[in-house]
Amino acid sequence: MKHEAMIPRLKKVEGQIRGLIKMIEEEKYCIDILQQISASIGALKSISVEIMKNHINSCVKNAILNGSDEEKIEELTKTIYKFIK
Amino acid sequence: MKHEAMIPRLKKVEGQIRGLIKMIEEEKYCIDILQQISASIGALKSISVEIMKNHINSCVKNAILNGSDEEKIEELTKTIYKFIK
Amino acid sequence: MKHEAMIPRLKKVEGQIRGLIKMIEEEKYCIDILQQISASIGALKSISVEIMKNHINSCVKNAILNGSDEEKIEELTKTIYKFIK
Amino acid sequence: MKHEAMIPRLKKVEGQIRGLIKMIEEEKYCIDILQQISASIGALKSISVEIMKNHINSCVKNAILNGSDEEKIEELTKTIYKFIK
Repeated sequence: MKHEAMIPRLKKVEGQIRGLIKMIEEEKYCIDILQQISASIGALKSISVEIMKNHINSCVKNAILNGSDEEKIEELTKTIYKFIK
Repeated sequence: MKHEAMIPRLKKVEGQIRGLIKMIEEEKYCIDILQQISASIGALKSISVEIMKNHINSCVKNAILNGSDEEKIEELTKTIYKFIK
Repeated sequence: MKHEAMIPRLKKVEGQIRGLIKMIEEEKYCIDILQQISASIGALKSISVEIMKNHINSCVKNAILNGSDEEKIEELTKTIYKFIK
Repeated sequence: MKHEAMIPRLKKVEGQIRGLIKMIEEEKYCIDILQQISASIGALKSISVEIMKNHINSCVKNAILNGSDEEKIEELTKTIYKFIK
Protein backbone atom coordinates (compact mmCIF):
# COMPACT_ATOMS: atom_id res chain seq x y z
CA MET A 1 0.00 0.00 0.00
CA LYS A 2 1.39 3.39 -0.98
CA HIS A 3 0.93 6.52 1.09
CA GLU A 4 3.35 8.89 -0.71
CA ALA A 5 0.72 11.63 -0.61
CA MET A 6 1.33 11.74 3.16
CA ILE A 7 5.05 12.58 2.82
CA PRO A 8 4.68 16.35 2.25
CA ARG A 9 2.24 16.52 5.15
CA LEU A 10 4.63 14.62 7.44
CA LYS A 11 7.50 16.89 6.33
CA LYS A 12 5.34 19.84 7.38
CA VAL A 13 4.85 18.24 10.81
CA GLU A 14 8.62 17.62 11.03
CA GLY A 15 9.10 21.36 10.37
CA GLN A 16 6.51 22.19 13.05
CA ILE A 17 8.40 20.06 15.59
CA ARG A 18 11.65 21.83 14.72
CA GLY A 19 9.77 25.12 15.10
CA LEU A 20 8.60 23.96 18.52
CA ILE A 21 12.16 23.25 19.65
CA LYS A 22 13.14 26.75 18.52
CA MET A 23 10.15 28.26 20.38
CA ILE A 24 11.31 26.58 23.58
CA GLU A 25 14.95 27.65 23.05
CA GLU A 26 13.73 31.23 22.53
CA GLU A 27 11.53 30.94 25.65
CA LYS A 28 8.30 31.73 23.84
CA TYR A 29 5.05 31.91 25.83
CA CYS A 30 3.79 28.50 27.08
CA ILE A 31 0.32 28.90 25.56
CA ASP A 32 1.78 29.67 22.12
CA ILE A 33 3.98 26.55 22.39
CA LEU A 34 0.94 24.47 23.39
CA GLN A 35 -1.07 25.78 20.44
CA GLN A 36 1.72 24.76 18.07
CA ILE A 37 1.83 21.25 19.62
CA SER A 38 -1.95 21.04 19.32
CA ALA A 39 -1.64 21.89 15.60
CA SER A 40 0.99 19.16 15.11
CA ILE A 41 -1.17 16.58 16.90
CA GLY A 42 -4.13 17.65 14.74
CA ALA A 43 -2.08 17.19 11.57
CA LEU A 44 -0.87 13.73 12.69
CA LYS A 45 -4.44 12.65 13.50
CA SER A 46 -5.66 13.81 10.11
CA ILE A 47 -2.79 11.95 8.37
CA SER A 48 -3.63 8.82 10.40
CA VAL A 49 -7.26 8.77 9.28
CA GLU A 50 -6.10 9.20 5.68
CA ILE A 51 -3.79 6.19 6.07
CA MET A 52 -6.63 4.19 7.69
CA LYS A 53 -8.83 5.04 4.70
CA ASN A 54 -6.14 3.88 2.24
CA HIS A 55 -5.69 0.74 4.34
CA ILE A 56 -9.43 -0.05 4.28
CA ASN A 57 -9.58 0.65 0.54
CA SER A 58 -6.72 -1.73 -0.19
CA CYS A 59 -5.60 -4.31 2.42
CA VAL A 60 -8.95 -4.70 4.21
CA LYS A 61 -10.94 -4.68 0.96
CA ASN A 62 -8.69 -7.35 -0.58
CA ALA A 63 -8.95 -9.48 2.54
CA ILE A 64 -12.75 -9.25 2.42
CA LEU A 65 -12.82 -10.15 -1.29
CA ASN A 66 -10.56 -13.13 -0.53
CA GLY A 67 -12.75 -14.23 2.37
CA SER A 68 -9.86 -13.91 4.81
CA ASP A 69 -10.88 -10.73 6.55
CA GLU A 70 -11.40 -11.71 10.19
CA GLU A 71 -7.84 -11.01 11.33
CA LYS A 72 -7.52 -7.83 9.22
CA ILE A 73 -10.72 -6.29 10.67
CA GLU A 74 -9.63 -7.24 14.20
CA GLU A 75 -6.24 -5.60 13.59
CA LEU A 76 -7.83 -2.49 12.10
CA THR A 77 -10.29 -1.94 14.93
CA LYS A 78 -7.55 -2.47 17.54
CA THR A 79 -5.57 0.25 15.78
CA ILE A 80 -8.58 2.58 15.60
CA TYR A 81 -9.11 2.01 19.34
CA LYS A 82 -5.49 3.02 20.03
CA PHE A 83 -6.24 6.40 18.46
CA ILE A 84 -9.67 6.88 20.02
CA LYS A 85 -9.20 5.75 23.61
CA MET B 1 -27.02 -4.47 12.00
CA LYS B 2 -27.66 -5.47 15.59
CA HIS B 3 -25.73 -4.11 18.53
CA GLU B 4 -27.84 -5.49 21.43
CA ALA B 5 -24.65 -6.54 23.21
CA MET B 6 -23.98 -2.84 23.73
CA ILE B 7 -27.21 -2.24 25.68
CA PRO B 8 -26.00 -3.47 29.11
CA ARG B 9 -22.82 -1.43 28.65
CA LEU B 10 -24.82 1.69 27.76
CA LYS B 11 -27.12 1.10 30.75
CA LYS B 12 -24.00 1.03 32.92
CA VAL B 13 -22.92 4.40 31.45
CA GLU B 14 -26.43 5.76 32.07
CA GLY B 15 -26.02 4.70 35.71
CA GLN B 16 -22.60 6.39 35.84
CA ILE B 17 -24.10 9.65 34.58
CA ARG B 18 -26.83 9.46 37.23
CA GLY B 19 -24.07 8.79 39.77
CA LEU B 20 -22.27 11.88 38.50
CA ILE B 21 -25.35 14.05 39.02
CA LYS B 22 -25.60 12.72 42.59
CA MET B 23 -21.89 13.41 43.19
CA ILE B 24 -22.41 17.03 42.15
CA GLU B 25 -25.56 17.37 44.28
CA GLU B 26 -23.61 16.00 47.25
CA GLU B 27 -20.72 18.39 46.47
CA LYS B 28 -18.14 15.63 46.09
CA TYR B 29 -14.52 16.57 45.35
CA CYS B 30 -13.95 17.94 41.78
CA ILE B 31 -11.18 15.48 40.99
CA ASP B 32 -13.36 12.51 41.97
CA ILE B 33 -16.14 13.84 39.72
CA LEU B 34 -13.66 14.26 36.86
CA GLN B 35 -12.40 10.70 37.29
CA GLN B 36 -15.96 9.40 37.05
CA ILE B 37 -16.57 11.44 33.87
CA SER B 38 -13.29 10.11 32.46
CA ALA B 39 -14.51 6.55 33.14
CA SER B 40 -17.81 7.24 31.35
CA ILE B 41 -16.03 8.72 28.33
CA GLY B 42 -13.72 5.69 28.27
CA ALA B 43 -16.71 3.34 28.32
CA LEU B 44 -18.43 5.26 25.49
CA LYS B 45 -15.25 5.18 23.38
CA SER B 46 -14.87 1.46 23.88
CA ILE B 47 -18.55 0.90 22.93
CA SER B 48 -18.03 3.06 19.83
CA VAL B 49 -15.11 1.00 18.56
CA GLU B 50 -17.17 -2.17 19.12
CA ILE B 51 -19.99 -0.68 17.02
CA MET B 52 -17.48 0.37 14.33
CA LYS B 53 -16.18 -3.22 14.26
CA ASN B 54 -19.72 -4.61 13.86
CA HIS B 55 -20.35 -2.02 11.16
CA ILE B 56 -17.20 -3.00 9.21
CA ASN B 57 -18.04 -6.68 9.63
CA SER B 58 -21.54 -6.21 8.23
CA CYS B 59 -22.46 -3.04 6.29
CA VAL B 60 -18.96 -2.22 4.97
CA LYS B 61 -18.17 -5.85 4.17
CA ASN B 62 -21.46 -6.27 2.26
CA ALA B 63 -20.86 -3.06 0.34
CA ILE B 64 -17.37 -4.29 -0.65
CA LEU B 65 -18.73 -7.68 -1.73
CA ASN B 66 -21.39 -5.86 -3.80
CA GLY B 67 -18.82 -3.57 -5.37
CA SER B 68 -20.57 -0.48 -4.00
CA ASP B 69 -18.18 0.40 -1.20
CA GLU B 70 -16.85 3.84 -2.08
CA GLU B 71 -19.51 5.82 -0.23
CA LYS B 72 -19.57 3.42 2.75
CA ILE B 73 -15.79 3.67 3.29
CA GLU B 74 -15.94 7.45 2.94
CA GLU B 75 -18.74 7.58 5.53
CA LEU B 76 -16.88 5.23 7.89
CA THR B 77 -13.60 7.15 7.79
CA LYS B 78 -15.41 10.47 8.32
CA THR B 79 -16.99 8.94 11.41
CA ILE B 80 -13.66 7.57 12.66
CA TYR B 81 -12.18 11.04 12.18
CA LYS B 82 -14.96 12.55 14.32
CA PHE B 83 -13.82 10.34 17.19
CA ILE B 84 -10.08 10.78 16.67
CA LYS B 85 -9.72 14.50 15.97
CA MET C 1 -16.75 23.46 45.20
CA LYS C 2 -20.18 23.64 43.61
CA HIS C 3 -20.90 22.55 40.06
CA GLU C 4 -24.75 22.68 40.04
CA ALA C 5 -24.65 24.43 36.67
CA MET C 6 -23.43 21.10 35.24
CA ILE C 7 -26.54 19.18 36.36
CA PRO C 8 -28.86 20.18 33.47
CA ARG C 9 -26.05 19.38 31.02
CA LEU C 10 -25.46 15.96 32.60
CA LYS C 11 -29.22 15.27 32.56
CA LYS C 12 -29.14 16.02 28.84
CA VAL C 13 -26.31 13.48 28.40
CA GLU C 14 -28.32 10.96 30.47
CA GLY C 15 -31.19 11.50 28.02
CA GLN C 16 -28.82 11.03 25.07
CA ILE C 17 -27.63 7.70 26.49
CA ARG C 18 -31.25 6.56 26.92
CA GLY C 19 -31.85 7.68 23.32
CA LEU C 20 -28.85 5.59 22.26
CA ILE C 21 -30.25 2.48 23.94
CA LYS C 22 -33.54 3.06 22.09
CA MET C 23 -31.69 3.55 18.77
CA ILE C 24 -30.00 0.17 19.26
CA GLU C 25 -33.27 -1.52 20.25
CA GLU C 26 -34.89 -0.09 17.10
CA GLU C 27 -31.87 -1.22 15.02
CA LYS C 28 -31.05 2.24 13.71
CA TYR C 29 -28.14 2.67 11.30
CA CYS C 30 -24.67 2.16 12.88
CA ILE C 31 -23.30 5.51 11.68
CA ASP C 32 -26.26 7.40 13.21
CA ILE C 33 -25.68 5.60 16.52
CA LEU C 34 -21.98 6.48 16.36
CA GLN C 35 -22.77 10.14 15.71
CA GLN C 36 -25.02 10.21 18.77
CA ILE C 37 -22.27 8.63 20.91
CA SER C 38 -19.79 11.16 19.53
CA ALA C 39 -22.16 13.97 20.59
CA SER C 40 -22.43 12.52 24.12
CA ILE C 41 -18.65 12.21 24.43
CA GLY C 42 -18.31 15.82 23.21
CA ALA C 43 -20.80 17.01 25.84
CA LEU C 44 -18.98 15.12 28.62
CA LYS C 45 -15.61 16.56 27.54
CA SER C 46 -17.02 20.07 27.53
CA ILE C 47 -18.54 19.53 31.01
CA SER C 48 -15.18 18.19 32.23
CA VAL C 49 -13.26 21.27 31.14
CA GLU C 50 -15.87 23.45 32.85
CA ILE C 51 -15.38 21.47 36.08
CA MET C 52 -11.59 21.76 35.70
CA LYS C 53 -11.99 25.53 35.35
CA ASN C 54 -14.13 25.73 38.50
CA HIS C 55 -11.59 23.54 40.27
CA ILE C 56 -8.66 25.79 39.27
CA ASN C 57 -10.66 28.89 40.23
CA SER C 58 -11.40 27.52 43.69
CA CYS C 59 -9.43 24.58 45.11
CA VAL C 60 -6.19 25.17 43.15
CA LYS C 61 -6.33 28.95 43.67
CA ASN C 62 -6.86 28.57 47.42
CA ALA C 63 -4.01 26.08 47.65
CA ILE C 64 -1.71 28.52 45.84
CA LEU C 65 -2.76 31.39 48.10
CA ASN C 66 -2.09 29.17 51.14
CA GLY C 67 1.32 28.13 49.80
CA SER C 68 0.29 24.47 49.77
CA ASP C 69 -0.21 23.99 46.06
CA GLU C 70 2.35 21.36 45.07
CA GLU C 71 0.10 18.34 45.60
CA LYS C 72 -2.99 20.09 44.14
CA ILE C 73 -1.18 21.02 40.89
CA GLU C 74 0.24 17.51 40.61
CA GLU C 75 -3.26 16.05 41.08
CA LEU C 76 -4.77 18.46 38.56
CA THR C 77 -2.23 17.77 35.82
CA LYS C 78 -2.54 14.00 36.34
CA THR C 79 -6.29 14.40 35.83
CA ILE C 80 -5.82 16.58 32.73
CA TYR C 81 -3.46 13.91 31.36
CA LYS C 82 -6.15 11.24 31.87
CA PHE C 83 -8.43 13.22 29.54
CA ILE C 84 -5.77 14.12 26.96
CA LYS C 85 -3.79 10.89 26.55
CA MET D 1 9.00 30.09 31.67
CA LYS D 2 11.61 27.56 30.63
CA HIS D 3 10.82 24.18 29.16
CA GLU D 4 14.34 23.07 28.07
CA ALA D 5 13.68 19.63 29.56
CA MET D 6 11.20 19.12 26.69
CA ILE D 7 13.83 19.61 23.96
CA PRO D 8 15.31 16.07 24.01
CA ARG D 9 11.77 14.65 24.00
CA LEU D 10 10.76 16.83 21.04
CA LYS D 11 13.97 15.84 19.21
CA LYS D 12 12.93 12.22 19.71
CA VAL D 13 9.52 13.00 18.17
CA GLU D 14 11.26 14.77 15.27
CA GLY D 15 13.26 11.56 14.73
CA GLN D 16 10.05 9.51 14.86
CA ILE D 17 8.48 11.71 12.16
CA ARG D 18 11.56 11.26 9.97
CA GLY D 19 11.29 7.52 10.62
CA LEU D 20 7.64 7.68 9.53
CA ILE D 21 8.57 9.33 6.24
CA LYS D 22 11.12 6.56 5.65
CA MET D 23 8.53 3.88 6.51
CA ILE D 24 6.21 5.33 3.87
CA GLU D 25 9.01 5.61 1.28
CA GLU D 26 9.89 1.95 1.95
CA GLU D 27 6.19 1.02 1.69
CA LYS D 28 5.98 -0.51 5.16
CA TYR D 29 2.71 -2.04 6.35
CA CYS D 30 -0.08 0.52 7.04
CA ILE D 31 -0.74 -0.75 10.56
CA ASP D 32 2.95 -0.43 11.52
CA ILE D 33 2.97 3.13 10.19
CA LEU D 34 -0.19 3.91 12.18
CA GLN D 35 1.35 2.50 15.35
CA GLN D 36 4.38 4.75 14.91
CA ILE D 37 2.12 7.80 14.39
CA SER D 38 0.15 6.81 17.50
CA ALA D 39 3.42 6.71 19.47
CA SER D 40 4.38 10.19 18.22
CA ILE D 41 0.96 11.60 19.14
CA GLY D 42 1.28 9.99 22.58
CA ALA D 43 4.69 11.58 23.09
CA LEU D 44 3.40 15.02 22.03
CA LYS D 45 0.43 14.74 24.39
CA SER D 46 2.68 13.81 27.28
CA ILE D 47 5.01 16.74 26.50
CA SER D 48 1.96 19.05 26.36
CA VAL D 49 0.75 18.09 29.81
CA GLU D 50 4.27 18.64 31.15
CA ILE D 51 4.29 22.15 29.63
CA MET D 52 0.81 22.81 31.08
CA LYS D 53 2.12 21.78 34.49
CA ASN D 54 5.10 24.14 34.20
CA HIS D 55 2.75 26.88 33.04
CA ILE D 56 0.42 26.40 36.03
CA ASN D 57 3.40 26.28 38.39
CA SER D 58 4.78 29.56 37.06
CA CYS D 59 2.60 31.91 34.98
CA VAL D 60 -0.78 30.88 36.44
CA LYS D 61 0.56 30.74 40.01
CA ASN D 62 2.12 34.21 39.71
CA ALA D 63 -1.10 35.61 38.26
CA ILE D 64 -3.06 34.17 41.19
CA LEU D 65 -0.59 35.58 43.73
CA ASN D 66 -0.87 38.99 42.01
CA GLY D 67 -4.66 38.85 42.02
CA SER D 68 -4.78 39.08 38.21
CA ASP D 69 -5.62 35.50 37.38
CA GLU D 70 -9.00 35.66 35.63
CA GLU D 71 -7.64 35.98 32.10
CA LYS D 72 -4.82 33.48 32.70
CA ILE D 73 -7.20 30.78 33.95
CA GLU D 74 -9.57 31.45 31.05
CA GLU D 75 -6.67 31.12 28.59
CA LEU D 76 -5.40 27.94 30.27
CA THR D 77 -8.76 26.17 30.25
CA LYS D 78 -9.37 27.16 26.61
CA THR D 79 -6.03 25.55 25.77
CA ILE D 80 -6.83 22.42 27.80
CA TYR D 81 -10.14 22.18 25.93
CA LYS D 82 -8.30 22.32 22.59
CA PHE D 83 -6.40 19.17 23.61
CA ILE D 84 -9.36 17.35 25.15
CA LYS D 85 -12.20 17.99 22.69
